[in-house]
Amino acid sequence: MKLYVVGIGPGEDCQLTGKAIRAIEESQLVIGYDVYIDLIKHLLPDKETLTTPMKKEVDRCKLAVEAAMAGKKVAVISSGDAGIYGMAGLIYEVLAEYKATDIQIEVIPGITAASSAAAVLGAPLTHDFAVISLSDLLTPWEVIGKRLRLAAEAGFAICIYNPSSKKRSDYLKKACEIILTVADRDTPCGYVRNIGREGQTSKILTLEELVQEQVDMFSTVIIGNKNTRVINDRLVTSRGYKGI
Amino acid sequence: MKLYVVGIGPGEDCQLTGKAIRAIEESQLVIGYDVYIDLIKHLLPDKETLTTPMKKEVDRCKLAVEAAMAGKKVAVISSGDAGIYGMAGLIYEVLAEYKATDIQIEVIPGITAASSAAAVLGAPLTHDFAVISLSDLLTPWEVIGKRLRLAAEAGFAICIYNPSSKKRSDYLKKACEIILTVADRDTPCGYVRNIGREGQTSKILTLEELVQEQVDMFSTVIIGNKNTRVINDRLVTSRGYKGI
Repeated sequence: MKLYVVGIGPGEDCQLTGKAIRAIEESQLVIGYDVYIDLIKHLLPDKETLTTPMKKEVDRCKLAVEAAMAGKKVAVISSGDAGIYGMAGLIYEVLAEYKATDIQIEVIPGITAASSAAAVLGAPLTHDFAVISLSDLLTPWEVIGKRLRLAAEAGFAICIYNPSSKKRSDYLKKACEIILTVADRDTPCGYVRNIGREGQTSKILTLEELVQEQVDMFSTVIIGNKNTRVINDRLVTSRGYKGI
Repeated sequence: MKLYVVGIGPGEDCQLTGKAIRAIEESQLVIGYDVYIDLIKHLLPDKETLTTPMKKEVDRCKLAVEAAMAGKKVAVISSGDAGIYGMAGLIYEVLAEYKATDIQIEVIPGITAASSAAAVLGAPLTHDFAVISLSDLLTPWEVIGKRLRLAAEAGFAICIYNPSSKKRSDYLKKACEIILTVADRDTPCGYVRNIGREGQTSKILTLEELVQEQVDMFSTVIIGNKNTRVINDRLVTSRGYKGI
């Protein structure tokens, strides 16, 4: 029995891969966080769906594994890429607990926010980069802070997921202050809100300006490195090609 | 005039997004490295194509910009994501040199090797990670080595692009030795060769074993962190959910 874990990309249909669409179409039951099910509901006419609220990830995976064990073809969906802060890892962990060895998991990658935000802002991730989530639900802030500092010391461009939430409205500020201990104040940065969805907006600004910026949980932030410049209102990290 | 920079994903048609296919179909001229044009040539019946060999990236971008300035609708293609070690940054830089302000660049993201390799191996990139290329054509080895060491100190899972080439067959070994100064010898790792293409193979092994492994330039390597385990022959990085 097959259990698909599908990344649906940022949200708009045209950013799903053919493989993702086929897996969803083939499945009898589609499970996901309600906001993501909503994004693709027009792809699911007459299909059984099951939604669970945010923070109910373990329950969602258990429901998926139990349905697959009962003989249903199931797709669990994540926004972006199912393997990057998505449900793929948890599905493997839950499946191991159930000892359901006859179920075969197939992870179908999607366009992750690092890729889609970078494309909107220009080309800030053309070279080495780090991806860091500011959510401290499952990771202590000390670990997050250390990673931010070392990523800046390493000269990575940094892509920040989950930059903010109601309970941690000052986390992006704290993150920028850590990076500022290493990086220049005028390091070019940018963020995109609602990527690929209605009301998409983006902004390019310096690291010093980003410290003061209010950015919400629907945003992805990219902080450049020493090779990042603003060219025609776009963020571009140069790889150092000669002869341009 | 529009100039598309399109990520075609790992190679198989089903991993292109609808947006990428549409941009290629809309274009009058499709430009790329010959191997990538070959991968999608069945999508290009009766379409003008222009291929340049590897290491001719600047020439490729100049040809693209000049064709767009002459009024053609052009798509430049990259494998994976056009914005991650792809052509997007260079296109912006070349366009700025030509002062071709009437040309509008649209970067269309694709599934990058970090996503596609992770999906084949299991779910090793479910949490913070770094992406590092071992190619020293444009980056001094000292910088690459420093990034590897700091990424390991930060506890990132690490995805390695360009792990090897004819001239630098021992670079992955050197990289693993740097990471081994910080990480455990039994850290779970894996690599995928020819992702999404004919003859795809993958292997899961420890960091200590990876040091001795010969991996070629068509491979993507993922090195886990302290939270990575092997579950049912798959590489899984736990995010620490309770109640599994």
